[in-house]
Amino acid sequence: MRIAVDAMGGDEAPFVNVSGSIQAVKEDSDIDIVLTGNEDSIKDCFKQMDLKHDNFEIVNASQTVEAHEKPTDAFRKKKDSSISVGLRMLKEKKVDAFVSAGNTGAVVAFSIFTLGRLKGVLRPALASFFPTLSGCCLVLDVGATSDTKAINLLQYAIMGSIYYQKIVGKENPRIGLLSIGEESTKGKGLTYQAFQMIEKSGLNFTGNIEGNDILKGKADVVVADGFAGNAILKFGESIVNIILDGFRNAVKGNLRYKLGGMLLKPAIKKLFKRMNYEEYGGAALLGVDGITLISHGRSNARAIKSAILAAQKDAREKVNEIISQKLKGINMEGNSG
Amino acid sequence: MRIAVDAMGGDEAPFVNVSGSIQAVKEDSDIDIVLTGNEDSIKDCFKQMDLKHDNFEIVNASQTVEAHEKPTDAFRKKKDSSISVGLRMLKEKKVDAFVSAGNTGAVVAFSIFTLGRLKGVLRPALASFFPTLSGCCLVLDVGATSDTKAINLLQYAIMGSIYYQKIVGKENPRIGLLSIGEESTKGKGLTYQAFQMIEKSGLNFTGNIEGNDILKGKADVVVADGFAGNAILKFGESIVNIILDGFRNAVKGNLRYKLGGMLLKPAIKKLFKRMNYEEYGGAALLGVDGITLISHGRSNARAIKSAILAAQKDAREKVNEIISQKLKGINMEGNSG
Repeated sequence: MRIAVDAMGGDEAPFVNVSGSIQAVKEDSDIDIVLTGNEDSIKDCFKQMDLKHDNFEIVNASQTVEAHEKPTDAFRKKKDSSISVGLRMLKEKKVDAFVSAGNTGAVVAFSIFTLGRLKGVLRPALASFFPTLSGCCLVLDVGATSDTKAINLLQYAIMGSIYYQKIVGKENPRIGLLSIGEESTKGKGLTYQAFQMIEKSGLNFTGNIEGNDILKGKADVVVADGFAGNAILKFGESIVNIILDGFRNAVKGNLRYKLGGMLLKPAIKKLFKRMNYEEYGGAALLGVDGITLISHGRSNARAIKSAILAAQKDAREKVNEIISQKLKGINMEGNSG
Repeated sequence: MRIAVDAMGGDEAPFVNVSGSIQAVKEDSDIDIVLTGNEDSIKDCFKQMDLKHDNFEIVNASQTVEAHEKPTDAFRKKKDSSISVGLRMLKEKKVDAFVSAGNTGAVVAFSIFTLGRLKGVLRPALASFFPTLSGCCLVLDVGATSDTKAINLLQYAIMGSIYYQKIVGKENPRIGLLSIGEESTKGKGLTYQAFQMIEKSGLNFTGNIEGNDILKGKADVVVADGFAGNAILKFGESIVNIILDGFRNAVKGNLRYKLGGMLLKPAIKKLFKRMNYEEYGGAALLGVDGITLISHGRSNARAIKSAILAAQKDAREKVNEIISQKLKGINMEGNSG
């Protein structure tokens, strides 16, 4: 299995990407890594770790997409960026998947432009794992698509169900539709329409769920439009960070708090590790014709390793083939009805 | 100033509503409270506290809307509920404002049906204060309206700006528009359209903000569609609760953690108090022809008191008159353009 890794993506590039790649290969020798990016910088990372780069293919890319660059501008101007180079290799089937911790908007846009949509998919969705009280759930779309229609939400439910089943290994995962209170049992809104469609889809649909149900694990797959999905993902991250910062400041306060903090540290660390989205690898861009995993910009080597392993599983389990197959079935039913 | 309080709303009704009302009157003797609900239960609360109810008007209501009742059904069936009775008094100008910790969807729907919309307002919005690193911000809409249009978002911006200015006392508050990454600087989406409108409105518009910017205090007023606003409100609350539960469980773990927890308790309490939305009174339903404040179902007496005081300020500052006036100006400009 050959996986291209964007060496230049994320806040601590290229080091965490290189060292995450090394960890992934150590864990599974079946993985071959292709690092895309500035060749000299990449080789420097190996040197720093006193390691040889012989087992890693390095493909030079002269450009890097910055964290806040506009995706469409970047796509036009940076044809030789580490993202473009990796995705072109994927398009040409020289690799089986692409992993990047770079500018999320750019990786999404570049992937859609370069790989195209999977047959039958109207809009791609970014699917991110959230920790829950009982395990984890997959929320999609967390921001690949804006101006979502009901049919898109149905397709997210189908793609999410297949992805969750193959990656987490749970048969027939429960699908929940994000909604607000009463809206979705009446009216003509997006959620109401999507509700009717998903209900008839044959998926294991548990109905509407609200924002406060997500972390309770009321559903394995939470279907949301990209706007709301993105808002809760980012808002949630910021809450966790603010509480964590609040603690760090609190335990600096005085001797009593310092001591309390020292005693509680392992428990706090464990608690926040569960809340930390970085532990969950990366978000999969479902619905494009190829496998793209997008890691958080603040990923550490362990998160990059997790993303590489998730990408490998995605490829091995042929998630995209199954999605295409399933959508063909659904579309036919829809046309005959 | 006469304020009707729904004695039967919330998880700990009627006790917290009665005792919150007593606290409010203690804090400001200019407030007269009218308690709506089951007269006997209300009088029992005073008895329990060994207090006389002579200074409180009690208006009996034979019905109570339950927490998970469907708003439209309840409105049809429960014409003599504590919510209906209070809102009718408001409609008939027998009171200046109405406060309820009851079923949010029901209070919103009953208010819209009973009071009607304020002149010039197309859709009402529920406006909720969120704590930020530097103070607080007002997020609207957190769920009064679904299927929002750009013109609604412009009106939210105007109403939110006026409300924030009058309640918090900050002139010319900064307005941010919730968006996801790139979407809103291009395309034809809702956020893009709203951006253009708010930009021309003469408000202090700081542009787009993302979900992770809200708690950083990048804007005083955050404009969002009711779906996304509701999702982040509920998701955020659930994160805070889960982390808090996690702590409670962690400090039960062993002697070391127990001791650490005891030492850190005041700091943790202080931290979570800031994150606790209940401390911020209630959410105002802006855009209806009357003042409705909706408190959290889990409100304690202090939260009810805060909501009553906020309702009083809202009435005293004539927020609704100013909103009507301002919208008239904006609409005229729109028509002449």
